[in-house]
Amino acid sequence: MRLIRGVKMDIKNYMLNMGTKAKKASKKMSTIDTNTKNKALELMSKALLENKEKIISANKKDMDNGKKNNLSKAKLDRLLLDEKRINSMANGLKKISNLPDPVGEGIKTIKRPNNLIINKIRVPLGVLGIIYESRPNVTVDAVGLCIKSGNTVILRGGSEAIHSNKILTDIIYKASLKAGLPENSIQLVETTDREAVKFMMQLNDYIDVLIPRGGKGLIQAVVNNSTVPVIETGVGNCHIFIDDTADFNMAEKIIINAKTQRPAVCNTMETLLVHKDIKDKFLPIIKRSLTDLGVELVGCEKTKDIIDVDKATEKDWANEYLDLKLAIKVVDSIDEAIDHIYEYGTKHSESIITNNYENSQKFHKEIDAAAVYVNASTRFTDGERYGLGAEIGISTQKLHARGPMGLKELTTVKYTVFGDGQIS
Amino acid sequence: MRLIRGVKMDIKNYMLNMGTKAKKASKKMSTIDTNTKNKALELMSKALLENKEKIISANKKDMDNGKKNNLSKAKLDRLLLDEKRINSMANGLKKISNLPDPVGEGIKTIKRPNNLIINKIRVPLGVLGIIYESRPNVTVDAVGLCIKSGNTVILRGGSEAIHSNKILTDIIYKASLKAGLPENSIQLVETTDREAVKFMMQLNDYIDVLIPRGGKGLIQAVVNNSTVPVIETGVGNCHIFIDDTADFNMAEKIIINAKTQRPAVCNTMETLLVHKDIKDKFLPIIKRSLTDLGVELVGCEKTKDIIDVDKATEKDWANEYLDLKLAIKVVDSIDEAIDHIYEYGTKHSESIITNNYENSQKFHKEIDAAAVYVNASTRFTDGERYGLGAEIGISTQKLHARGPMGLKELTTVKYTVFGDGQIS
Repeated sequence: MRLIRGVKMDIKNYMLNMGTKAKKASKKMSTIDTNTKNKALELMSKALLENKEKIISANKKDMDNGKKNNLSKAKLDRLLLDEKRINSMANGLKKISNLPDPVGEGIKTIKRPNNLIINKIRVPLGVLGIIYESRPNVTVDAVGLCIKSGNTVILRGGSEAIHSNKILTDIIYKASLKAGLPENSIQLVETTDREAVKFMMQLNDYIDVLIPRGGKGLIQAVVNNSTVPVIETGVGNCHIFIDDTADFNMAEKIIINAKTQRPAVCNTMETLLVHKDIKDKFLPIIKRSLTDLGVELVGCEKTKDIIDVDKATEKDWANEYLDLKLAIKVVDSIDEAIDHIYEYGTKHSESIITNNYENSQKFHKEIDAAAVYVNASTRFTDGERYGLGAEIGISTQKLHARGPMGLKELTTVKYTVFGDGQIS
Repeated sequence: MRLIRGVKMDIKNYMLNMGTKAKKASKKMSTIDTNTKNKALELMSKALLENKEKIISANKKDMDNGKKNNLSKAKLDRLLLDEKRINSMANGLKKISNLPDPVGEGIKTIKRPNNLIINKIRVPLGVLGIIYESRPNVTVDAVGLCIKSGNTVILRGGSEAIHSNKILTDIIYKASLKAGLPENSIQLVETTDREAVKFMMQLNDYIDVLIPRGGKGLIQAVVNNSTVPVIETGVGNCHIFIDDTADFNMAEKIIINAKTQRPAVCNTMETLLVHKDIKDKFLPIIKRSLTDLGVELVGCEKTKDIIDVDKATEKDWANEYLDLKLAIKVVDSIDEAIDHIYEYGTKHSESIITNNYENSQKFHKEIDAAAVYVNASTRFTDGERYGLGAEIGISTQKLHARGPMGLKELTTVKYTVFGDGQIS
């Protein structure tokens, strides 16, 4: 028995109760009209701006605890909510309210020879479970997308952000009720007990899909332990292959962009593959410009023959550095490049820089990844940059959704059939 | 250590080896052109017809073992392969060869303000694992659909059908090689050891999707134990609700069709819900016609007040009889009918018989199922009957595919992006 908001309650019952309420709410939520959902998003956005001080003061508790518990500088930065970040969350909700509502969209209509009319339409998934780590802004972003797509949501954030997550959920939940959304359409797991996550991953009768958002460890743990269907997001060990026909100037610009623009995100480049015929000329260029930008380089033996870098180990090829570090490998052919990506890639984003038509086609065809680029940076893999609107993550799995997951990817389909007495 | 075709081999290594070969084959398979795939299907079809005697004689071994092991009559019937059924498998392959190839189909093209061209196209899932029970025809049907959609496949059939499955796989695999498909694109788990399934469900690095085909027990076991993504198919506790405005004649015909045409399949009706205002007139009609057809009826208290049937228990509402048996419940309103379906339905197919516009809309909106019917039989939920071609099953889950799963549902998407040096 544990204390949750002063009430003694067994964790399993607590989670079951939450699941039951979410499922009940989702029945109502699935029929709520677009205007009401948009009004909710706008009121939520407004409420965040009106409660900045409260949010910052709750976040201070988390920050103080984080410092006490010696969280890394990077983690503390992810945890921080300041005026700018609150404005950004509020803006995010407004943007979502401006996106088209996917629910009810007709996908196709089939008229059968017996006059049966079969409509395939888009409907909400139902109840979404979001399991995430230290960024409290995920609370708001995820709720916005879940609500607009007609789903109800159970949130389980990191324990280090619990005060921030509680206040954010309280504020947006109250605003959602004011707009007319059903009770319990937004719920936060308020205990930081790890048992809660364990039960959450077994709530097949109540949660339709789990989306883990965070590092590799979190995602793997959810994939391995959940019986609820999971959408994997985010792990990106992305490669760029420079073939022997590449424009060096273009290649250099793309490499700098893909490695240094925002190294901590999933669509950043982690390994550079260089064709052997250009290694002598190209590697010194790239060494100079990346070293100037503070990028640490490691390389294979052939790379080391040309530029002075540390030796790359097996671990480097598999690693998602998420940092200013890059592994470089010289390959004999496009086939070796593709094989390397097949072995070490995480099916996220891969790019070739080439001026050879056959190679561009071959790379597009043979690379198995969510996004395959010719002569462009891997950094483009992003819902906004694809013109799809806000995203809940980049799916690296093949079922249901692949690549940037926007509102449509948070829906499923239903066949509604109109008859006049047809029997088979 | 166990014996497989005379070779001692540890089961785990055996499955890992199979996964590795399937993954390697899938790289080639994903780029095979449509003509080659169609040729393979045609040669496979021809080979089945040319080897009828071999197939029937292998099947006799399974039938003899089945009789020795006291398999039920229904199970023995499912196991049987005769000339007619072999013809039907061969025809099935031909039909699949005539269906359009989903691979490479363009879903949309986005041109971005920076001139980046983003194509969203359909690509194979990769490696499919099919786990099924006693019907050996699944071996051929599943392979046909997997091959046409550019996937490689690992089959794990029921131990009682092992001789039939082996000969069928041998025949169609050899034919596939003759047409030019890659080695190991079709593999059968040849051990009947249950450990093999256990390992198969953990082969996340090799199998992209598992599709269990069979009874509730099999499907639940796979859902609960697999870390590989699963598509649930098939369990159908389907309802028909007769509201107070229904045309009795239409309702009677649809009920007879949905219950008696083929009671052992998933889209058959299992519970009939009747509005209280028509119970006195309608229940006697339905009792007479269904009893004449050999259907056993059980009912709620209110049903029993009007017609002489056994009492339905809680278990009856949840049961998928797959037999000539029907549970009947009188409800006070459409809301009670919808609530009952929400509680006991398996999200497969649900139908309302009504002449009330508002009720027809309400039922379509509020019922959470793959297929929702107005004035038609639930028996229509089927790939062929929807005009989608052959199907691998009816998905009752919400991720990836819902309803009849044809060739398109065995694919995923990929973004192929064409640039000329774009950076973000």
